[in-house]
Amino acid sequence: MPLLATTGAGHDSDPVPAVLLALAFAIVCAKLAGELFVRLGQPAVLGELLVGIVAGNASLFGGPDLAPLASSETLTVLAELGAVLLLFHVGLESTPTEMMAVGGRATLVAVVGVVTPMILGFGVGELLRPAESWMLHAFLGAMLAATSVGITARVLKDAGALRKPFARIILGAAVIDDVLGLLVLAVVSGIIRAASAGTLVSPASLAAIVVKAVVFLVGALLVGALLSPRVFRGALALRSRGVVLALSLGFCFLLSYLALRAGLAPIVGAFAAGLVLEDVHFEDHVKRGEPPLHGSLEPLIALLVPVFFIRMGMLVDLRSFASASVLGFAALLTAAAILGKLACGLAAPGGTSGLTIGLGMMPRGEVGLIFAGIGAKLVLDGRPVVDASDYAAAVSMVVTTTLLTPPLLSWSLRRRAPLA
Amino acid sequence: MPLLATTGAGHDSDPVPAVLLALAFAIVCAKLAGELFVRLGQPAVLGELLVGIVAGNASLFGGPDLAPLASSETLTVLAELGAVLLLFHVGLESTPTEMMAVGGRATLVAVVGVVTPMILGFGVGELLRPAESWMLHAFLGAMLAATSVGITARVLKDAGALRKPFARIILGAAVIDDVLGLLVLAVVSGIIRAASAGTLVSPASLAAIVVKAVVFLVGALLVGALLSPRVFRGALALRSRGVVLALSLGFCFLLSYLALRAGLAPIVGAFAAGLVLEDVHFEDHVKRGEPPLHGSLEPLIALLVPVFFIRMGMLVDLRSFASASVLGFAALLTAAAILGKLACGLAAPGGTSGLTIGLGMMPRGEVGLIFAGIGAKLVLDGRPVVDASDYAAAVSMVVTTTLLTPPLLSWSLRRRAPLA
Repeated sequence: MPLLATTGAGHDSDPVPAVLLALAFAIVCAKLAGELFVRLGQPAVLGELLVGIVAGNASLFGGPDLAPLASSETLTVLAELGAVLLLFHVGLESTPTEMMAVGGRATLVAVVGVVTPMILGFGVGELLRPAESWMLHAFLGAMLAATSVGITARVLKDAGALRKPFARIILGAAVIDDVLGLLVLAVVSGIIRAASAGTLVSPASLAAIVVKAVVFLVGALLVGALLSPRVFRGALALRSRGVVLALSLGFCFLLSYLALRAGLAPIVGAFAAGLVLEDVHFEDHVKRGEPPLHGSLEPLIALLVPVFFIRMGMLVDLRSFASASVLGFAALLTAAAILGKLACGLAAPGGTSGLTIGLGMMPRGEVGLIFAGIGAKLVLDGRPVVDASDYAAAVSMVVTTTLLTPPLLSWSLRRRAPLA
Repeated sequence: MPLLATTGAGHDSDPVPAVLLALAFAIVCAKLAGELFVRLGQPAVLGELLVGIVAGNASLFGGPDLAPLASSETLTVLAELGAVLLLFHVGLESTPTEMMAVGGRATLVAVVGVVTPMILGFGVGELLRPAESWMLHAFLGAMLAATSVGITARVLKDAGALRKPFARIILGAAVIDDVLGLLVLAVVSGIIRAASAGTLVSPASLAAIVVKAVVFLVGALLVGALLSPRVFRGALALRSRGVVLALSLGFCFLLSYLALRAGLAPIVGAFAAGLVLEDVHFEDHVKRGEPPLHGSLEPLIALLVPVFFIRMGMLVDLRSFASASVLGFAALLTAAAILGKLACGLAAPGGTSGLTIGLGMMPRGEVGLIFAGIGAKLVLDGRPVVDASDYAAAVSMVVTTTLLTPPLLSWSLRRRAPLA
């Protein structure tokens, strides 16, 4: 163990001190901010996001510049592990059968939630920048497509609403959204790249993306549901403590990895792993004195999930709100993003709150930023597809949808609690 | 969240897939190997180390080369967090008062355990390489000085022996060892650097190192013991769940960070944090329904500690055993390392097993490698202080002491169980 690793040369290049300090800060501040916001009637996650925004923009007020820390490899991975564990935990609350029951409706919600913001985003481009190519406007729309499910999952979890039917619709739709968003990005980028090279996009390469994603999802659910009871029954032969946690986490991380390899997000794999695993699989382990899986996940979530949300806040650059010329464009794009997802609610089944579902689909998180980053690297007619002002507008859209979701969604949950 | 982070350019530069796969592998293989070794009457940690050795040397048998993964930033940090949590947990088993009670004896054990291997290592150099400067031989001795406490702590923990007096002596001595080892390294390197530049080493700079370390240790224990009951009493005002875990981890990470800043190892800070915190501080929290700290730490330890030991195994390069000319030198140096620490046992108080204490002080882990790495960068009379064959000998010494400790120590524990 690097007992003395820091006595040598590289004190500055050693990531350990910064990570230790960041973790100490994250776990304590998340708890305090969460407590404060819950007392104010707001969801705890909003407090964590704001802690992150303050920390990430401390340099504007003469504090240290923590932006390199937020984008450091280790903190990125720790945050990603937090998101994986959160979605695993969320998936555990449902079974594949329960998800299938809302599958058709969730697909409809997801399609409406991808198509409407794309059309509205396209419209904003046509309206405010009529001289530009339609392809640039299509990319603007694509940036608005994919929901970032972490925020919503957390609000639903904190409100104890994960087992409600509307929560399953939102979560199912968000996962489908992720697949659709990927497809949209691939199609739009493919068209732009081809146009830039003067050729046409290959339908086969687009089809391959879809096939890989579908094969992963169906395979993970079918094979997982078939194997997992057997594996846990076989594991009864093991005598050491912690078998349930080890096997469950191993399965969660393996599916997250396979999801990545299938071109999807790791959280999609983690969610699928959570869906597949059922308490009944390890009933006999718990009878023998193993701690139940939910209880074991709690400390892991307590340590890593705040890292995810604080880091998400740190990535917000408040300076992007500073230019008045950007603000008008940003405001319209944000409105398109919000209205586009609220339209999901129209696809909600009777008896559930369309508004709740729409609000749950609203946050974009980092997804929008990743889209914008890819656009910034694409070039059409000698200019980047996403220029500096587009990027600032995308950041505003992400910040606004992310920060508005927790208070609005929890308000909507309280309002409709008896019905939903 | 990087839902789609991998659809962009950097599939290969994204560390997330490798970390997910490594974690899935680590947590499942650690459990299986641990189970196997426990059934064979061996400590579980030996199984984890061997899993690591096999994984790290897979390329020798036509498998993938995982060496870059083992030394990747994220896995290094995750392993370090595992070591920090393990030593925090170990520290929780004792109080500062209990440690003070064995403090004098632990100091004696530590001093014997630093001085004897240094003299023996120096002797090996004088014997086998008489033409070389005495300073190089002193460095050889210094490489043998510091105990790596992780292995021993884990074996003691798995054997349920942490609260035994001899365990306190070993753990206290290992922490003092860490401070002494640092001092030895600073002195020897300082002398060599000064000799290389034709000057003398400054006593003031050496004194500063000692003062910083002592100020940290005394400060952490005094201020921590004074503040922590007040902080937890104050925290009763917080209503949210998980306050005990958040504050305890925050304290552990903060002290680990401060230890690093004081020039010590993070695990020294984690151990000090564990010593200071007492169950009685959060009695009232547990009465309110908070999970007890020990239970909350278990899942974190289950995930991260195997990463530490598997990675330690992965860092072993089996090829360093291949050269016959190195083997003789390596064997003598390893014998010096083992005998030097067994000599600690002579300083053991009556009624405890000197052999157990000596074996507990034996493992060198990464510490020896870090010393060797620093020596490889130091130059005296135009040659590196630690050349290739010295380095291979250091690796053999580390591997042998690390792999021998778990079986020998657990044998010794079983043998002396009624007495110790």
